[in-house]
Amino acid sequence: MSLKDIRPHTLSRYLPILDWGRRYDTGALASDLVAAMIVTIMLVPQSLAYALLAGLPPEMGLYASIVPLLAYAIFGTSRVLAVGPVAVVSLMTAASVGNLALQGTGEYILAAITLAFMSGLMLLAMGLFKLGFLANFLSHPVIAGFITATGLLIALSQLKHILGIDASGHTLPDLARSLIEHLPLANLPSIVIGVGATLFLFWVRSGLKPLLLRIGLKPRLADVLAKTGPVAAVALTTLAAWGLHLGDRGVALVGVVPGGLPPLTVPSFDLDLWTSLAGPALLISIIGFVESVSVAQTLAAKRRQRIVPDQELVGLGASNIASAMSGGYPVTGGFARSVVNFDAGAESPAAGAFTAIGITLAALALTPLLFFLPKATLAATIIVAVLSLIDFSILKRSWAYSKADFFAVVTTVLLTLGLGVSIGISAGVLLSVLLYLHKTSRPHIADVGLVPGTQHFRNVKRHKVITDPRVLSLRVDESLYFANARFLENHLFERVVGNAPIKHVVLLCSAINEIDLSALESLEAINHRLASMGVKLHLSEVKGPVLDRLQRSDFLDALSGQVFLSHFEAIEALTEKPGVISAGRPDPAELAS
Amino acid sequence: MSLKDIRPHTLSRYLPILDWGRRYDTGALASDLVAAMIVTIMLVPQSLAYALLAGLPPEMGLYASIVPLLAYAIFGTSRVLAVGPVAVVSLMTAASVGNLALQGTGEYILAAITLAFMSGLMLLAMGLFKLGFLANFLSHPVIAGFITATGLLIALSQLKHILGIDASGHTLPDLARSLIEHLPLANLPSIVIGVGATLFLFWVRSGLKPLLLRIGLKPRLADVLAKTGPVAAVALTTLAAWGLHLGDRGVALVGVVPGGLPPLTVPSFDLDLWTSLAGPALLISIIGFVESVSVAQTLAAKRRQRIVPDQELVGLGASNIASAMSGGYPVTGGFARSVVNFDAGAESPAAGAFTAIGITLAALALTPLLFFLPKATLAATIIVAVLSLIDFSILKRSWAYSKADFFAVVTTVLLTLGLGVSIGISAGVLLSVLLYLHKTSRPHIADVGLVPGTQHFRNVKRHKVITDPRVLSLRVDESLYFANARFLENHLFERVVGNAPIKHVVLLCSAINEIDLSALESLEAINHRLASMGVKLHLSEVKGPVLDRLQRSDFLDALSGQVFLSHFEAIEALTEKPGVISAGRPDPAELAS
Repeated sequence: MSLKDIRPHTLSRYLPILDWGRRYDTGALASDLVAAMIVTIMLVPQSLAYALLAGLPPEMGLYASIVPLLAYAIFGTSRVLAVGPVAVVSLMTAASVGNLALQGTGEYILAAITLAFMSGLMLLAMGLFKLGFLANFLSHPVIAGFITATGLLIALSQLKHILGIDASGHTLPDLARSLIEHLPLANLPSIVIGVGATLFLFWVRSGLKPLLLRIGLKPRLADVLAKTGPVAAVALTTLAAWGLHLGDRGVALVGVVPGGLPPLTVPSFDLDLWTSLAGPALLISIIGFVESVSVAQTLAAKRRQRIVPDQELVGLGASNIASAMSGGYPVTGGFARSVVNFDAGAESPAAGAFTAIGITLAALALTPLLFFLPKATLAATIIVAVLSLIDFSILKRSWAYSKADFFAVVTTVLLTLGLGVSIGISAGVLLSVLLYLHKTSRPHIADVGLVPGTQHFRNVKRHKVITDPRVLSLRVDESLYFANARFLENHLFERVVGNAPIKHVVLLCSAINEIDLSALESLEAINHRLASMGVKLHLSEVKGPVLDRLQRSDFLDALSGQVFLSHFEAIEALTEKPGVISAGRPDPAELAS
Repeated sequence: MSLKDIRPHTLSRYLPILDWGRRYDTGALASDLVAAMIVTIMLVPQSLAYALLAGLPPEMGLYASIVPLLAYAIFGTSRVLAVGPVAVVSLMTAASVGNLALQGTGEYILAAITLAFMSGLMLLAMGLFKLGFLANFLSHPVIAGFITATGLLIALSQLKHILGIDASGHTLPDLARSLIEHLPLANLPSIVIGVGATLFLFWVRSGLKPLLLRIGLKPRLADVLAKTGPVAAVALTTLAAWGLHLGDRGVALVGVVPGGLPPLTVPSFDLDLWTSLAGPALLISIIGFVESVSVAQTLAAKRRQRIVPDQELVGLGASNIASAMSGGYPVTGGFARSVVNFDAGAESPAAGAFTAIGITLAALALTPLLFFLPKATLAATIIVAVLSLIDFSILKRSWAYSKADFFAVVTTVLLTLGLGVSIGISAGVLLSVLLYLHKTSRPHIADVGLVPGTQHFRNVKRHKVITDPRVLSLRVDESLYFANARFLENHLFERVVGNAPIKHVVLLCSAINEIDLSALESLEAINHRLASMGVKLHLSEVKGPVLDRLQRSDFLDALSGQVFLSHFEAIEALTEKPGVISAGRPDPAELAS
């Protein structure tokens, strides 16, 4: 294969735009333009709201929805993923940056930009080094618990805007305490606006589309109109705030939003800041990647397209670096907007680029109109958006299916609510790994005997089989590695000590796919100890690759017994004349498990 | 079973002394007394030396060798384990306490006592809650690398006493820098004493016993005399220091060692101190436990006795709490002294109690004689003792056997030397877990086809088999859990997208021992996605317990295909008339792997 053959393929692997761009036509262009318009209408209020949630000036939400979309259109593999600020990542940004600087200061903004830059570098590195598998360590139930707890925290954090009071905190107890403390200062006009907007948005979600259909609109148009709910809420409450001078009655307004193109920004390269943000940046990267890939895969499957997870890392990494360079903050693929993009008929990442142009126009032209927009309205759009994230059914599901999973979910939920997002998700990951290791550290080890009339060996507790008191036949149902090496050692030792007739131990290795160095040393110790008791150790049915590796060590030379091709051969060689010594009764409890 | 029947058994399970104490006779008494005498002679200089290594006053080493031995004799299950201060734990004590207080201050001593107390509580808790499996997460090669690196650090840290200079640091670079800095102040008489004692002790180890045998001594007596080497070195250099006034010539002496019984001490209950010491205490507990249990098991096996790991945790926990209450510091079962105890014929834990009495007598009577003992002599005994710990062969072994293990060892060694013991061992544990998870996160997935003339299905890459382009048959060789759930999803998706003829996917589940909730959700997603592509998902040969659990979820109702008892049944049902579509050639590379 010459270099010429490789180049186009390799380039389009790293720049998917070369692939779909080549086949782009006017049909796709028209579909993408329509989708972009609908997504733009949805994204403008959402971008402002999520910036508010992250504790950042509203224009940063708009900036985060412009250049990152262009970057993803070039490097991403999903045809329909819409990147930008999302609720969970915005809250995680607020929680991690809030520990380092005060909201409203230049340091806070710089830290958020730096967080996006670091997250971008990490995602890019993970993509280039094919480390996408790191995301596998997040178990689904842990993510579900985390998202639910985060949704609750987000909704609670927005109550202050609805109530028109100050409140702070990144955990449930802190937020609740702060809200209760400031409650006496609640502002009635804010509550009217906030609760009104919330109810209106709920009604738009559930009641508007059926109504539009009833009055004879086409389903497609009814769908699009129902998506304009948030824009309508923004327009109505802005008008009300302007006409009724609500700003003078204590309603917090968005105020001056600088218009214009996204600025060129540079992250901080302060080592202390990088050290403090490294952990949060990694968590945000992984959470963002997992969410984004799930959405992208679900949507791609519907059209029998494929996405490349490692290239998705590159796409998201480029988006975050672009965000950091253009006045934004951490972004990822959003669920709601991607579904809207998909439903609106987007055919290629060009739809994202057109959306970016739409939001640029909004940033250029609409910002003066946002002066009178009440923050309570934005809070209402956030609350309505995140309530769909909150889903405690995972508790019921995991309780019914697996207690270990349930335990991991409950811990994640409680620690996220009680101690914050970083500790919550870290504990969830750690716990699921520990529970898994614990499970594999106690493998099932069965005593086996010969099924009469066959060459098969089965568990003595479940079948009538022939055994010999001088030969202990054990089948280990797990690969041997450091976490269960000692378990096997103890198990064998307990079985042999005080069991005087035993002269041979045969390990049936058919289920052992690997023996690591720890397990090898355990086998050496077992061999040595058994020898010092006058008992020989044999192996049977060792798989080819495992035997290859054992031959590279000196274990087989030191082995007191032999390696048999089949367990039947082993028993034939070690037993003079096997008789029915123990015809085990099937134990009902064992059979059921 | 009445309460009366249970009580003696339960009590002697938690108090093994009730078990062996009942059968104790004069034969055992005589053996234990002899063993105790020999171990006492060995332990006195060693205890002083390890206290020096831990940065503590020498008498604390003696105290740590008295009451803890009595506690172990009551609660421990090993007949011959000798607990007390050991090299690795002493260094870990110095490293963790040295971060919090200055050597020689009361705070330093109090922190060491508190560390022993916390470690005791942790061991006790791990024992009572049966958490001994936590020690399994230390892979053998990681421990070997850690012990080697620690041995090097210990030897290097003692050079300052040999050179008669000050030096500090808990990492290789710090220690080396500090030693080089102070080198010009090296004290010649100290060097003569230190190097002389080191050479003498090496000679005692290797040359004295053959010499004694040659001049006609009985092997047993020659053995005992060879063990008195350190005591002889102590006596000779103390005499030299006294006679030649070496203290005036700059040789550091042990000085005043308060005589008398161990004092009653109380650990600190300062919350900040506990927070700082929690991590080190856990590491010391686990390292100490792993070392101790390995020694105990090795020796017990030789006499076909057994030890109970969870009860060992209780024994070591009680010993450490006893140490904290009687002026000692963290202790564990030592390798060298246990072997000596065993070889000298100890028959029961009473030997340990007699050793405690011997060391008490030494603490009462001999402390005035220690005034002139040069620190260089103690340093020499440490260096000679730890050089046997240093064994780089693990690097060669792991390189030959498994690159993943090699990588974990090298990381542990380098980080222990470069950044200290806590970081080194933590990184080793973390890395071995991550490498294992990485391995299981990419399970072997084989395309299988029917072996002609049988009902068996085999890998298409290794056997001539019959397949059908409309049916994708896959065998997954690993339990499905969160770390590989997404891998299966991606693998399946890649196989089906762009492969138009496929109408059915059948997963052969014979090697799947478990499906956790994450994997269940992946299967649901796979089922859903395949359905949206018009492809049906089927399962075959699902194990009973796995199927039981699936039935508790609603997966089977949603499954687009069926669950078949055997894979043969599945293929028969899904294929109209199977023909030889692909007769795969065995691929040499695949066969070898």
